Amino acid sequence: MLIVKKFGGTSVANKERIMNVARRCTEDYKAGHDVVVVLSAMGKYTDELIAMAEDINEKPPRRELDMLLTLGEQMSVALMAMALDTLKVPAISLNAFQVSMHTTSVHGNARLKRIDTERIQRELENRKIVVVTGFQGVNKYDDYTTLGRGGSDTTAVALAAALHADVCEIFTDVDGVYTADPRLVPTARKLSEISYDEMLDLATLGAGVLHNRSVELAKKYGVPLVVRSSLNNSEGTVVKEEPTVERMLISGVALDTKAVRIAVIGLQDVPGTAFKLFDVLAKRNINVDVILQSIGRNGTKDISFTVDDKDLDEAIAALDENRQRLGYKELQSDRNIAKLSIVGAGMMSNPGVAARMFESLYNENVNINMISTSEIRVTVLINEQDGVKAMNAVHDAFKLAD
Amino acid sequence: MLIVKKFGGTSVANKERIMNVARRCTEDYKAGHDVVVVLSAMGKYTDELIAMAEDINEKPPRRELDMLLTLGEQMSVALMAMALDTLKVPAISLNAFQVSMHTTSVHGNARLKRIDTERIQRELENRKIVVVTGFQGVNKYDDYTTLGRGGSDTTAVALAAALHADVCEIFTDVDGVYTADPRLVPTARKLSEISYDEMLDLATLGAGVLHNRSVELAKKYGVPLVVRSSLNNSEGTVVKEEPTVERMLISGVALDTKAVRIAVIGLQDVPGTAFKLFDVLAKRNINVDVILQSIGRNGTKDISFTVDDKDLDEAIAALDENRQRLGYKELQSDRNIAKLSIVGAGMMSNPGVAARMFESLYNENVNINMISTSEIRVTVLINEQDGVKAMNAVHDAFKLAD
Repeated sequence: MLIVKKFGGTSVANKERIMNVARRCTEDYKAGHDVVVVLSAMGKYTDELIAMAEDINEKPPRRELDMLLTLGEQMSVALMAMALDTLKVPAISLNAFQVSMHTTSVHGNARLKRIDTERIQRELENRKIVVVTGFQGVNKYDDYTTLGRGGSDTTAVALAAALHADVCEIFTDVDGVYTADPRLVPTARKLSEISYDEMLDLATLGAGVLHNRSVELAKKYGVPLVVRSSLNNSEGTVVKEEPTVERMLISGVALDTKAVRIAVIGLQDVPGTAFKLFDVLAKRNINVDVILQSIGRNGTKDISFTVDDKDLDEAIAALDENRQRLGYKELQSDRNIAKLSIVGAGMMSNPGVAARMFESLYNENVNINMISTSEIRVTVLINEQDGVKAMNAVHDAFKLAD
Repeated sequence: MLIVKKFGGTSVANKERIMNVARRCTEDYKAGHDVVVVLSAMGKYTDELIAMAEDINEKPPRRELDMLLTLGEQMSVALMAMALDTLKVPAISLNAFQVSMHTTSVHGNARLKRIDTERIQRELENRKIVVVTGFQGVNKYDDYTTLGRGGSDTTAVALAAALHADVCEIFTDVDGVYTADPRLVPTARKLSEISYDEMLDLATLGAGVLHNRSVELAKKYGVPLVVRSSLNNSEGTVVKEEPTVERMLISGVALDTKAVRIAVIGLQDVPGTAFKLFDVLAKRNINVDVILQSIGRNGTKDISFTVDDKDLDEAIAALDENRQRLGYKELQSDRNIAKLSIVGAGMMSNPGVAARMFESLYNENVNINMISTSEIRVTVLINEQDGVKAMNAVHDAFKLAD
């Protein structure tokens, strides 16, 4: 069996953890499997490199920043190969040049285009554990690129696809995908399986276990993913096309308290208003989530939407600059909101799901501000202080507990 | 004019020094020259990386150690390109892969075989300052190698040769080559010019300004070298084939207190004894310097030689292990010695040079233990405590002061 294992920065943050990961990789190797390990930079090292760069240049050129940031993973893989050597297991570390991880040209947010597998396959045939840098690539100019958020997960899945690996294991600090965040919902239960689509909605909605880019890629190439803990040996959650276990109505409940709401009041009710508004934000690379349009007074309309709280200031500034062109009366913003979502492929054939969610919120006296739905998801906007109570209520209503 | 500039680790040890080097490179660029900058790792960063490796693996595999060590120079060049950007000068950093610095396969002590110049030349044509990693290369397996001691100097000279640069400037913490170490000989004078051969003997003899590999390479390809200070703008010393200034009898006096003497007493006086002895040391990669053979008692002979003090323990161990085969009576070692040398192409046509050196030592009551000479060099072994006194006496005897 060919296994791709990905460990994040926390799992390789110091000598002890590196040795721990090395021992872990050795088990599968000794059982006769081929093992490829994808690593992120150690602990907070990427942040330290960014700080070092910004100390010299407030706006470091992205090309040079990528040149600097790729050091992080190269350090991890070299140290891991040395750790494996102490365990008498042959290992070799490879960076983006040595593998040949071809990406698009854009720095800081490149996309993988093609991975050469020749070198990795040769090393596997020599019975080595191959330790590969995550997060980084090389563009057509032979310059380093980085993949942006969730980059190492993406590297691991793409490698698994290119190598036709039997499984891609993503090791994290939780031991799988839960029906809800166990820190907030004590009765939350670990799922043994979940579909790519459900996982995508959970990833997007802030469950935070896997980045959606990697899930999309896994879905596209049918790579079986397993989300496992790097701290214990429990089985984790398998993410695949069609879970074989009995399908539940709902797979999970996700709470996102980072969303903020912006309301644009008194827009003219003419065609093109919404386009102009969201075009202004798209040009600044601001992701807009739940959108609600309502009729205002005197032939005007109001548009509300949510953005990530880190984008709030820039969104307000962008709208302010374009006030004339957009022709609105007033801007309001509200940080005191949370996004509560239920996700489940089962709801496609069960029309009562949304109603059951709303009922459980009503029973807890939780007010719903906005509603948004997709085929396998219902999202409501509520006040932030109701978040945990609402999450538990919905979790109970769908009998997700053990 | 195309100028290759090399700065060592001390010159880029922190933000202020990096900015200082950046400003310096900008001057030649703004005067219309093409500038290639070769950098070492910052300050003690290479030592830190080695410590990090040895903390995980007492004997890290050399291939993986090189993978780790190359991070040092890549960090330097990325930060330097960012620093140049703040000065509004277009710059680009390149590592050994991006340039294509082809080396032999051996890790930790590789030799440069070929440097591709295409990428560098293209960037120079785009009027960029090109910042290149010293010390590192890539072997035919696409693995990182490092060049060993003096590696960055070697990279700079090799690059200058490959690019047909007009000059290769080596920046150090001294402002040129002196007739003697100014810290030990207050009257020492800076040389404006010196020949490759003289510089080679000075480099080998511990003057410490330039590594001999880089001088050999410069001589082979006729690359004009300039040794300059990174701290001030003084003119430095030009190293070239035929100095144009009036040739002095002696160019400099060098003192090396790191040498230790080993005496092998009571060897059998038969053919092959010396071969066997030095073969044992060569197999351990121990460099032997001054050698003296003398007749002992009862048909035996004694052989004395010097090695670097870091090699003393291993040399003694190697000789001990082979005692049977070499058939000697006793080993002695002496740390309390110093090697004093005079170097000068002028002595080739002046037979009285060695005698004048010995006379000046006799006048100071300095005992000479061993003597070794080459065409342009005379070396004597003296007691370490006489070192500075003897150096000054010889420096005076040849009127090297201003």
